[in-house]
Amino acid sequence: MRKLTAVASGIAAIGLSVAAAGGATENVSPIYGVSLPEGYRGWQMITVAHEAGKNNDIRGILGNDIAVKAFREGTRPFPDGSVIARLAYVYKSSPENDAVFPTPQSFVAGAPTNVQISVKDSKRYAESGGWGYGQFENGVANQSEPLLKSCFACHTRLDRSKDLVFSQYSP
Amino acid sequence: MRKLTAVASGIAAIGLSVAAAGGATENVSPIYGVSLPEGYRGWQMITVAHEAGKNNDIRGILGNDIAVKAFREGTRPFPDGSVIARLAYVYKSSPENDAVFPTPQSFVAGAPTNVQISVKDSKRYAESGGWGYGQFENGVANQSEPLLKSCFACHTRLDRSKDLVFSQYSP
Repeated sequence: MRKLTAVASGIAAIGLSVAAAGGATENVSPIYGVSLPEGYRGWQMITVAHEAGKNNDIRGILGNDIAVKAFREGTRPFPDGSVIARLAYVYKSSPENDAVFPTPQSFVAGAPTNVQISVKDSKRYAESGGWGYGQFENGVANQSEPLLKSCFACHTRLDRSKDLVFSQYSP
Repeated sequence: MRKLTAVASGIAAIGLSVAAAGGATENVSPIYGVSLPEGYRGWQMITVAHEAGKNNDIRGILGNDIAVKAFREGTRPFPDGSVIARLAYVYKSSPENDAVFPTPQSFVAGAPTNVQISVKDSKRYAESGGWGYGQFENGVANQSEPLLKSCFACHTRLDRSKDLVFSQYSP
């Protein structure tokens, strides 16, 4: 069994390096080719939000150093290299917390739902306002083209001064 | 006018250094002597939450490296040196976001309300389960002793396995 596992790992490793070299099956979004940036979970927080409705999630919005600097300084449009990571979690009430509060009031982050990545590259993504998008579930790039097309379709409806970004920085 | 400002700044600077030396008027919480840690806004995110009821806020919970490592590895009790920063903002609906969504659904962070700091030091804070607390509004330590006493009174009602901490890490 140990031997089989080792063989299977070997095959997986070969598979990964082929993918990395060939590009065809890399873990990137369709249309934009956006990957999950290394270390994004350790990035600084831009803000937090709750989306009710169909999403019903609570989210933390993180940014790499370029994005966070631009948010803090109000630089618009965002400079190339800005990356925003939107981490969403199931929005759920917390009976544990409510038990120690005066009233039921506590809503917390449950299981992660998905991570959306926005990458600013004004040349590469000129056709979508300079932004490329990716959505990841459990670290795997969602391959739905209609889903990815909906990113720009929605962001482009924002006021132009926002450079296609929903989030505002929370001090 | 410029001269007056310079003199005023000079006085303020002297005031600050006296405070730092004397300790009596430092910007620290009563009971615990907890100050606002330098650079806390850049710390990594632990999780997010929404408190309805009287608080009516949305919050990001950040931690220093020691705290975040303990959260990730499930280390309980938290090691000395762990610091948790809970940043709360007015919970508000976003007409701007809702205008581009199919339904009104978007709630975002408004103005900051307060920042609560929890510092783990099992010796210094032995009488409060190893945690010292501070609350800051606009960077200024709240001097209400009843408020500060309510921190431990509330946290101590949690299950013992949580080491007096509400937050759970969101991956």
